[in-house]
Formats: sequence, C-alpha cells, structure tokens
Amino acid sequence: MSRTPSNQTPGNPGGAPTIAVSMGDPLGIGPEVTVKALADPDLRSRARFLVFGMSGAMQMAADRAGIEPYWWRVRAGSDAAADAEPGDDGPGGVLLIDYTGKRRDGVEADPGLLDGGPKPTKQGGAASFRFVEDSIASAQRPAGSALSSGAIVTAPISKEAWSMAGKSKYPGHTELLASRFNTKRVRMMFVAPKLRTILATAHLPLMDIRNVLTIGRVFDTIDLGWEACRSLGIEQPRVAVCGLNPHAGEAGLLGDEETRVIEPAIKLAREQGMNVSGPFPGDTIWRPALAGRYDLVVAMYHDQGLIPVKLLSFESAVNVTTGLPVTRTSPDHGTAFDIAGQDRADAGSMRAAIDLAIGMSSERASGACVTNPA
Amino acid sequence: MSRTPSNQTPGNPGGAPTIAVSMGDPLGIGPEVTVKALADPDLRSRARFLVFGMSGAMQMAADRAGIEPYWWRVRAGSDAAADAEPGDDGPGGVLLIDYTGKRRDGVEADPGLLDGGPKPTKQGGAASFRFVEDSIASAQRPAGSALSSGAIVTAPISKEAWSMAGKSKYPGHTELLASRFNTKRVRMMFVAPKLRTILATAHLPLMDIRNVLTIGRVFDTIDLGWEACRSLGIEQPRVAVCGLNPHAGEAGLLGDEETRVIEPAIKLAREQGMNVSGPFPGDTIWRPALAGRYDLVVAMYHDQGLIPVKLLSFESAVNVTTGLPVTRTSPDHGTAFDIAGQDRADAGSMRAAIDLAIGMSSERASGACVTNPA
Repeated sequence: MSRTPSNQTPGNPGGAPTIAVSMGDPLGIGPEVTVKALADPDLRSRARFLVFGMSGAMQMAADRAGIEPYWWRVRAGSDAAADAEPGDDGPGGVLLIDYTGKRRDGVEADPGLLDGGPKPTKQGGAASFRFVEDSIASAQRPAGSALSSGAIVTAPISKEAWSMAGKSKYPGHTELLASRFNTKRVRMMFVAPKLRTILATAHLPLMDIRNVLTIGRVFDTIDLGWEACRSLGIEQPRVAVCGLNPHAGEAGLLGDEETRVIEPAIKLAREQGMNVSGPFPGDTIWRPALAGRYDLVVAMYHDQGLIPVKLLSFESAVNVTTGLPVTRTSPDHGTAFDIAGQDRADAGSMRAAIDLAIGMSSERASGACVTNPA
Repeated sequence: MSRTPSNQTPGNPGGAPTIAVSMGDPLGIGPEVTVKALADPDLRSRARFLVFGMSGAMQMAADRAGIEPYWWRVRAGSDAAADAEPGDDGPGGVLLIDYTGKRRDGVEADPGLLDGGPKPTKQGGAASFRFVEDSIASAQRPAGSALSSGAIVTAPISKEAWSMAGKSKYPGHTELLASRFNTKRVRMMFVAPKLRTILATAHLPLMDIRNVLTIGRVFDTIDLGWEACRSLGIEQPRVAVCGLNPHAGEAGLLGDEETRVIEPAIKLAREQGMNVSGPFPGDTIWRPALAGRYDLVVAMYHDQGLIPVKLLSFESAVNVTTGLPVTRTSPDHGTAFDIAGQDRADAGSMRAAIDLAIGMSSERASGACVTNPA
C-alpha cells in the first residue's frame, strides 16, 4: 500500500485528523487509560477519534474513575457503523466501535469475559487482535470514506492472550502492522519529553544481533529515525549513533562492528545529507542527548535504548512505529494485569501517545516531510 | 597472597587506615583531582595517605586551583622514603612519594614531560604504570612496615600511554591488579549515592559474551557483589540480577541464557543463603533499585550497568574492584586530556573514591565481613 498522493491526511476530510484507537486487552488497563486520556476536552478538540473496543469495559473504567461517558457508540459491522460520520468538537468527537456480543464471523467480545478477572484469556486475545486489525483497516481506507483514519494509537495487548487466541504468528503490534502494511522496514522508536531513541534491533536474543546487524539495517534505522524527527517538526535533525561494543569498540580493541558496520552506515547517511555523528559509547551518549545536543539517539539493541527511556520517562514515553505509511503510536507500558480494574493506572503515556499521533499526522498532512511508502 | 590474619588493616598500625593513591597520568586530570580531593581537611583527618606521583604535576595543579600544598615530599627509592612514617592528623597526613627525575631502574618521570601538553605519551605511560605498581606493592607489604597501606585509590591512566610505554599486556588498572594479586576472580563494581551495580562481564566485544557467560561467572559476580556490599556495611544485601536478553528472554522466546545460565547461578547463590532475585529485564530493574528495593544490581555486561551509572551519577560514582585482598577504588572518569591543566576538573568522583576506600578498609578491619582471599 502506498500513501494517498493528495495533500490530505487519510481520514482527514475536514481539517482535524481522525485517529483510530484500539482499546487493547479488555481485561488489562487499556480501557482505563483510553477512557482517562480521551476524557481531556482539550485533546478531544484537536482530532476526531474512532475507538475500537468494548462498551462494557469502557463503561466500567469510566464508572470507576467517575468520568461521564463522552462517546457515541455504534455496533461494529452494523449499518449505522458503516454510515457513521464523527461529528465536530465536543462529545461527538469520539465514536466507539463496539464489538460486544457474538459476531457473525465468530470473533467474540462476550460481555461475560469481563467477569473473569484481569489475566490473559483466549477471548481477550481474540477481541484485542480484532480491535487492532480493524484499526489498521480503518487507516487503510481512502481519505474521506466512512470509518477512515489517518493514524493509529494502540492500547496494550497481552502477547500471551494473542497466543491463546491462535495469533502467536504475531508476537506484538509491530509485527502485525508490518505484515498488514506489507513492509519489513519498520523500527521501534521512543519519544519522551527530553529524549528520542530508535532501535536498530529489538526483540531478538542479544547474541543473535551478529546475524542481523548489517550496514543496510543501521542505515535504514538512521534514515527512518531522521524521517520520524522530521514528522515531529524538526527540520534538520541532529542524530547520534551508538556503538555496539563497550566504549564503542575502543578503536577495534573491543569488537569490530563499529568499523565494519556502523561507521559505513553513518558515512552513507552523511552522503545523503543527514547530520549524523558517532559511533559513540553507549553509556556516555545519553547525557549530551538529554542536554539537547542531539535530537535522536540511534541505539543498536533493545536495552541500550530502553534503559534510558525507562529510567527517565516511565510515565510519559511514547512508542512510535516508524516505516509505516501511517503514524502509529502506543503508550510505553503493558497490560498491567496486576493493577487492572482498580482505577490505579496512570494515563499519562496513553495521553502522550494520542497527543503525538495528532501532531505527527498533522505534520505529515502539511507536507513538511517526505514519508516512506512501503 | 592472602589477607593478614590479624584484626589490623595492613598499614593501619595506629587506628586510621593508610590509603595508597596513585596520581594517574601526569598529563591528564589525575594530579588535579588528587590535589583537590585531598585538600579537604575532613577527608585528611580520617586516614593517612601515600600519594605515588610527581611533585611538579601536583604543584602545578595546586597553583592553578589556589591550593596551598598540604603534603610532605620524599624521593621515591630514597632512604628517607624507606624510613618515612606518616604523621598523625594535619598536613603530615599526606606523604608524596615523588618519582621526578631519572630513576636508577630506568623508569623516568622527567620533569620535562610536563611541558608536552595533555596527551598520551610514552613517558606519561611509564610513570603512571610505575605509580600503580608501587601502590600495589605498598598494599602488599605487611601491616606496620614502612610505606605499607591498606587500600588503593587510582587516579585515571591512559591505556594508549601504557601501550606506548610497552605495557599493552594490561589494558587497564583492573588487569594489572588481577595479575599482581594473582587472581582472575575480580569484577568491576560501581557505587553511587543511590545505586550499586556489579558487572558479570566488562571489557570484551559484546558478541563474545556467549563464550564467557557461565553459571560460575554469574555466581562469582553475585558472590563478590554480596561480599562488597557487606564491606560497605550492608548486613543482608538484597541483590537483583539482570537478564541478558530483551525482557530477560521472555520465558525463552528471546534467548536461553536466562534459563540455562543465570537462573541456575541465582539458585546456587540462594542455596548459600544470599537474598537474590531475578533475572529481571535489564531495562526495568533500575527504577525499583533506585527506589531502594535492592542494594545491588548484577548487570550482565558493560553498557547494561554503566548506562544507569553514567546517566544518574556522573560526578559521584566510584569504581570498586571486587575480589582483591585489599580495597581498590577509582573515580568513574578517564584522563580527560581535553580539559587537563585548566583547573576545570570536578574532583567529586575522586573524593568519593577516597571516602569509600576509607570506609571499606575500616569496615574490613573491624571484621564485619568475610573477605575473598585470592
């Protein structure tokens, strides 16, 4: 799929973008953080929202938090849903596509599943998988058509529940998105108030990095991160690249990936006009980045990038999937079954994810940057 | 070498411990941070100090910082040095063993080397290597003999300068110490105000971890860290162990080192009565540790442990070498040739290293813990 060639964001016929929000696992904290985040009238005034989820879960979360429901509800698959046009500002801004009941294609979102307590279940996995699939479908519809959207925000799902529902082919959102948008050139990026980082590799055994860390992979990561920074409104991003080894290999004494892989990728990126420096030691680059000397740090692996993010920005970091034809963001936390259903979840990261999705889709629509069609 | 069986700390005939301080590379910031740290009368009142270094470098650093010299000087190898007895409190507390001049055994600390500008040199390498060697020799002398000490604090050396001086066999202090004390069972540990971490592996290519990460190595790291915490006065240390892979392997989906190596090592440590938990994901363990839930985090590799240390405690972290029969600490920074000779160096980490060495050798001397003879 390639991006719409017009200047309009898909699902953005009027002006404000339309954001698809998948509610996540009905038994996790997804419904709670969704309800709480969108309860902010200021956030609602800046976009229209399609929430793919379950009415009962949303209602329970709202009741517990003392929030007056602010959404319209239509049944998924109904004629009303097909015709639905989100209204302008105000309560009309959020349309809940409700999957409650036994659907004709066999995917259940039985209201009874909410009584089972917060844990991974087959039913919760099947339902949350469907929410994400339909959010993606919504973002793939032509701009202006019913239920079309320009960006996707995903509340947390349980990988274990997806596996129980027979969806173990997809360990998580990112893999499902990459499959549905038919691209492998996607990377996880994290955006926090003072820190942005993108991962060259993510969910694989640490010792398997040797098999996948190529010049092309590192270059693609720099390139995708650079584009994402442009989508965030940074015109000339300053990019710092980490080494893989201690002390960035100490001139070859402690490993050769820096000279063999990372430096050539940096050279390639510079030749394309990007402002890129490194490789820097993975332990000392974060303070200069935090001090504002770089707009983005390219980390070579999961913990190298995630340790700073989790240490500094636990409640406010947003996960951005780069490389897709649409914006996709998610909060930087999981289903948190241990505190689900207790009105204890902090919606800060979900709010930040929605805020960023609005900002990035507006920036994309304004033509401020070149996107990466798959 | 085994520890002295008496209750006395070596070099601690009176009561206050004697600390050997190697001045580091004469052209780096070592002389400056040594002079500044020991300028604190409170620190000086708690121990006696033998500084192995060069008078000219110390004097220049003191002049630039406006510090009145507070040390006595004896020539290295002279009869005066052999007979020297550090005095009690006050200016007599610091004795500088001065290597300036051409020594009879060929090791130079030519005053002229100080005119060459801050950079790695063969002369600086040879001199700083000698300072460390003689600090170690001092700590190996029987308690109560002349120039004996009970702990070693090392200011930064240049690995490149050591290599230029033909000492490339030792990439750094730790390897030289391990060799001189005839043990391989040493680990790097970092102690900061709110964080302690010990590394199972350190200066090797990241992808070579697979060759060295054994149950024994992880167990030894836990054990040495536990002992070190005891030396720090923590009676029942609570130890958290990191996984190697993302999400600590996610139950084997993302790597098997957790189940194959790390979990058995934890089990072994528990069987020995240690309070050890994990393996925890390397990105999420640091906040609970910072919040005080653990006294020590065992990291599997260099950047996993050093990213949090460098992010949170840049000026105050201390590097502790565990597994030696004596206490050895050093500041958590390098020679910093780029700012050397400009009176711009922060002596906070050097001061903390000296402070910790005093504390740990007093704790050791009090018999509060079992040490690990090589």
